[in-house]
Amino acid sequence: MTLARGETSPDPRAAAAFPVVRTGVTAVVPHPGNLYRERPRAASFVFNGYGKSLGLAQLGELGVLETPILLTNTLSVFTAANALVTRALAENPDIGLTAGTVNPVVGECSDAYLNDIRGRHVTEADCLEALRQAAPGPVPEGNVGAGTGMSCLGFKGGLGTASRTIVFELPATGRGPRPGEPGARFTLGCLVLANFGRRADFRLDGVPVGRDLVAAGWPDQLPGGSIMVVLATDAPLTSRQLTRVSRRAVLGLARTGSVGAHGSGDFVLAFSTAGLEPAFPSEPILVRYALAEDDRHFGPLFEAAVEATEEAIVNALFAAETMAGRDGHVREALPTEEVISILRRHGRV
Amino acid sequence: MTLARGETSPDPRAAAAFPVVRTGVTAVVPHPGNLYRERPRAASFVFNGYGKSLGLAQLGELGVLETPILLTNTLSVFTAANALVTRALAENPDIGLTAGTVNPVVGECSDAYLNDIRGRHVTEADCLEALRQAAPGPVPEGNVGAGTGMSCLGFKGGLGTASRTIVFELPATGRGPRPGEPGARFTLGCLVLANFGRRADFRLDGVPVGRDLVAAGWPDQLPGGSIMVVLATDAPLTSRQLTRVSRRAVLGLARTGSVGAHGSGDFVLAFSTAGLEPAFPSEPILVRYALAEDDRHFGPLFEAAVEATEEAIVNALFAAETMAGRDGHVREALPTEEVISILRRHGRV
Amino acid sequence: MTLARGETSPDPRAAAAFPVVRTGVTAVVPHPGNLYRERPRAASFVFNGYGKSLGLAQLGELGVLETPILLTNTLSVFTAANALVTRALAENPDIGLTAGTVNPVVGECSDAYLNDIRGRHVTEADCLEALRQAAPGPVPEGNVGAGTGMSCLGFKGGLGTASRTIVFELPATGRGPRPGEPGARFTLGCLVLANFGRRADFRLDGVPVGRDLVAAGWPDQLPGGSIMVVLATDAPLTSRQLTRVSRRAVLGLARTGSVGAHGSGDFVLAFSTAGLEPAFPSEPILVRYALAEDDRHFGPLFEAAVEATEEAIVNALFAAETMAGRDGHVREALPTEEVISILRRHGRV
Amino acid sequence: MTLARGETSPDPRAAAAFPVVRTGVTAVVPHPGNLYRERPRAASFVFNGYGKSLGLAQLGELGVLETPILLTNTLSVFTAANALVTRALAENPDIGLTAGTVNPVVGECSDAYLNDIRGRHVTEADCLEALRQAAPGPVPEGNVGAGTGMSCLGFKGGLGTASRTIVFELPATGRGPRPGEPGARFTLGCLVLANFGRRADFRLDGVPVGRDLVAAGWPDQLPGGSIMVVLATDAPLTSRQLTRVSRRAVLGLARTGSVGAHGSGDFVLAFSTAGLEPAFPSEPILVRYALAEDDRHFGPLFEAAVEATEEAIVNALFAAETMAGRDGHVREALPTEEVISILRRHGRV
Repeated sequence: MTLARGETSPDPRAAAAFPVVRTGVTAVVPHPGNLYRERPRAASFVFNGYGKSLGLAQLGELGVLETPILLTNTLSVFTAANALVTRALAENPDIGLTAGTVNPVVGECSDAYLNDIRGRHVTEADCLEALRQAAPGPVPEGNVGAGTGMSCLGFKGGLGTASRTIVFELPATGRGPRPGEPGARFTLGCLVLANFGRRADFRLDGVPVGRDLVAAGWPDQLPGGSIMVVLATDAPLTSRQLTRVSRRAVLGLARTGSVGAHGSGDFVLAFSTAGLEPAFPSEPILVRYALAEDDRHFGPLFEAAVEATEEAIVNALFAAETMAGRDGHVREALPTEEVISILRRHGRV
Repeated sequence: MTLARGETSPDPRAAAAFPVVRTGVTAVVPHPGNLYRERPRAASFVFNGYGKSLGLAQLGELGVLETPILLTNTLSVFTAANALVTRALAENPDIGLTAGTVNPVVGECSDAYLNDIRGRHVTEADCLEALRQAAPGPVPEGNVGAGTGMSCLGFKGGLGTASRTIVFELPATGRGPRPGEPGARFTLGCLVLANFGRRADFRLDGVPVGRDLVAAGWPDQLPGGSIMVVLATDAPLTSRQLTRVSRRAVLGLARTGSVGAHGSGDFVLAFSTAGLEPAFPSEPILVRYALAEDDRHFGPLFEAAVEATEEAIVNALFAAETMAGRDGHVREALPTEEVISILRRHGRV
Repeated sequence: MTLARGETSPDPRAAAAFPVVRTGVTAVVPHPGNLYRERPRAASFVFNGYGKSLGLAQLGELGVLETPILLTNTLSVFTAANALVTRALAENPDIGLTAGTVNPVVGECSDAYLNDIRGRHVTEADCLEALRQAAPGPVPEGNVGAGTGMSCLGFKGGLGTASRTIVFELPATGRGPRPGEPGARFTLGCLVLANFGRRADFRLDGVPVGRDLVAAGWPDQLPGGSIMVVLATDAPLTSRQLTRVSRRAVLGLARTGSVGAHGSGDFVLAFSTAGLEPAFPSEPILVRYALAEDDRHFGPLFEAAVEATEEAIVNALFAAETMAGRDGHVREALPTEEVISILRRHGRV
Repeated sequence: MTLARGETSPDPRAAAAFPVVRTGVTAVVPHPGNLYRERPRAASFVFNGYGKSLGLAQLGELGVLETPILLTNTLSVFTAANALVTRALAENPDIGLTAGTVNPVVGECSDAYLNDIRGRHVTEADCLEALRQAAPGPVPEGNVGAGTGMSCLGFKGGLGTASRTIVFELPATGRGPRPGEPGARFTLGCLVLANFGRRADFRLDGVPVGRDLVAAGWPDQLPGGSIMVVLATDAPLTSRQLTRVSRRAVLGLARTGSVGAHGSGDFVLAFSTAGLEPAFPSEPILVRYALAEDDRHFGPLFEAAVEATEEAIVNALFAAETMAGRDGHVREALPTEEVISILRRHGRV
């Protein structure tokens, strides 16, 4: 596991799936085209449904995204959804006239410890600006966008990202991909809005860092918060397969110390940028590519989902900086020197 | 089955669960107290998830409502959710500070044929006003509230309601209810936002009225729309049991001619007004009453859900009046004289 | 709706999917090859989970069948599953050695009113014989195979079958199917094991036949039983799409009078014979065909599922003959003359 | 975390929930009475449905167990189910006559590496004997019962068990439990059939023991297998709440190194021994106790489920002994000395 910040998405395809960010809201734009017309296959997994994420019923029924994904604080999801509708209406003059309506997808965590969440300060304009600014490239982490006010495992949390590349052997024939067929090299990227857990439970690469920090005098705190995980891949997966992948994110979450607290809305979204589904198909029969579903191909994919989620959470913690918020609340950044000396004591660095 | 409008909720308990209505939005208020603090047990069933209803993930996880339910058009659900948050924040100064956040529940159908749905004309003020006006008593049907612009089975649709009363024998001992225990007489009420289906498919008490109307010259139309069903009961049910009840609504829906069209978001919500769950329990162990779960007790309950849903849809059709909407679109009311003569021809009246 | 027995599966492809039958057990064999190696995509929908059907967890996870489907009585499902395992082991010497295990799928209803169900008389040999006898062609209905002892809507029930053919327009280019691509004409077939419901609730094409029969002196009876619906199609559908199709069977069920009784296990299985999935894929990327998922293509498919299920149930009732069973129990056949005169009275024939 | 074998269930109530063991099959008997008549509330969670566990559909629908749970190898589940039916028929002469049928619940993992699983050597007599031998007291671990042939994380796996005790403060009034009300001290016990994972992935209390063992020359191995987790508690939980608890088992599983491999059927069952549900209720309204559902009460419960699952898996590994099986296959026991020296190197012991 690499802890270095900013080196987490070496593959431009994964990076492209995760552009970025404005105070209080983060946009995930699967492709630069018209998402309402060219829909990425997608799925979700709700581990603990104590949350207000929007759009999951239709996502499950049809297995596609129709809009970008916005992430924000819990009480601003409805404003964010309105922004996605505004954008979709502007791009698609047929929505609500000759076409149907549109299903915005928004995820959230509660940053109420630092943020004046009752104020619902995120505006539709903020959301539209975040959507406009979305661009390929490195993904900022820590106290940015939706991550600005989040807390995680007793410290300052926020956005984190990581990715894995998976290479499959070509078949014995040695043939290359057919025209339009995906190659044998895929990336799975993960973006987390990390806002869960209790200080004493924090584990870093298995080391009970939280326990040692509490023993060293850092006060423990009650669990709280939530997590939103977004997984993106260019592997050609069906929505059922994406559901399977999304479930594995929870295993990565567990490795960092989550016990799935009662009040923690733990939601995972997953989408594939391969093989977009047309909103208005011109032929009755469509051709699709699909990754072979056996141990050889799904083993690495699941492992990638577990690892990228774990690493993205850790990256969020390392990137986030101490922040002062409402009513004198302060959430301190992870004390990285202390953490590294704990890792050293455990023979890990 | 009684088709008469306005006679459908003879039991004040059911009526109390379904107060009322304002142009473009309808409020369902399970009880007059603070719903955030005293939560009705609840559940949902999604038959066809092509819809944007909000709040279902948390409803499923915790099995309770925290807010009233608002019904409105598809693109106004987010505004309605914001209104429910505004109301909850006003009533509960601890939300987002010492308490958690709040989970608004909103249902929707698309009235885009008549309504300028792109305009998103429903305001937060409209929603708050609907919540304020909610009161026990007879429930208006047809072109009111969220039902204003809806279409159903080729004709003008909208709100409809019906209820059934279920009486269970007292046990052999003849004892009456213990203090605080529910009695043996329960009501199940149903409110529908009826906006689904195709003219030719319409069946009234099994008579193929739609087929006969089309044969008589009424043009057929493509299916479309959606339906929201809300079931309320004072029987003491767990959330798992409410899920079971909510599924039966689909059988009533089928009787009126639905084939569960691809684009029809078919959602059911169900709640019980018996045995509210405290947000902040003062004791670790709570006492609950539960309806015995066998054929004797759940048979009548399921039958009530099927029948009340069927009747509520029919009532919506009989109550709704011809309406002209956007771009010269007109949706005609059910031609009741013609329908009655068809029923007569089939030996039904 | 055609009520004539034996004319329900005009398309040989649908018939091939539903071969046949031996006392106490019925085999559904999706294709004549090795199902463990070439797996049909499949899905299930559980409307009321009060039943003992086997194999659904893995079916849902992987979206494929690995064995034929057997139908039998409730307490014989485990013996039937053992038979499927026996057959799979014989056909696949690698199972349990170099390959994994195998997931048998078995459906059931309780014929305990007529059958000595406690005796568990169905043997593994019976099941293997049913699998051997499976062959394309017309599907016997009524008191055959798993249907032998079943009761439905107060009368003798059993096996029933029906199908629909769906033709899609070719795209504007007028091109024919590409090599290996499915055509534009598909069949959806339905096989039911009909064993549910209460006499007074029976509806035939919407006519309250049951009510009229009870009014004419046939005693009413408590609801009971269950239903297994199996849908087969040669349309190229994903497992998610098959789940959507399977849900619609419940609407056909509702039309015949079911209220989804508490004790009625209502299960639907659906599979596609197009595009088999290899157990041991030789390439990482597979090519798949998929039916375009919009109103134009899924509307007729859903309608077919509703209608075929309704008709298959009615066919089961018309085909079944009076049977005497355990302890002097007798289940009378539907009195067809009386039913036809009721239909006549309602202007239906 | 305590690694010592045999000390894991100090509370007799948890132990009573997990009696016993015979070669090839393990019985979990929630109470010594007639389970068909007095039913424990129960739930399941399927993390990866690649498995053949039986009885989950009805368990989910009704939220109760009707039989003991049997655990065995994958291809013997149907024989085990027949044994549960045989036992239920013997104890309940009304099943299949005046009462309905019965829903056996069986879990499984594949021990095909060591066991001649194709031989299906577990007999109904074996299962009935395991049910007869079930008794309160310490639970044997390792190579016993269903655990006999299992492999886990590259080493010999099998049965493991652990438990946690949770104490809630009495309310401010200081009152004790009312008559019949549960106390404020609860136990959650966990039994695992541990048969999953890959050697290199094994983590013990966070230490990458598997990685270090592979580095020291132990060959890595492909992932495989599965896990069955059974959670039992005497806390009064509804079936919905038990589903929530069961999900947390997966977090404990993740801590030991599972990546939820494609072929690993990961199933969790959970039941409560408090507040049995009568099969034939004599009154329409039943009184129930329920644990208050907030952070204060469900936090410790979820933590207990995570920890007990992690510990039970580790206990299975420490208890299991090297075993030789079919075709010269040998599965070595965890090299405990080497493991302890690795833990020492990581500063953990």
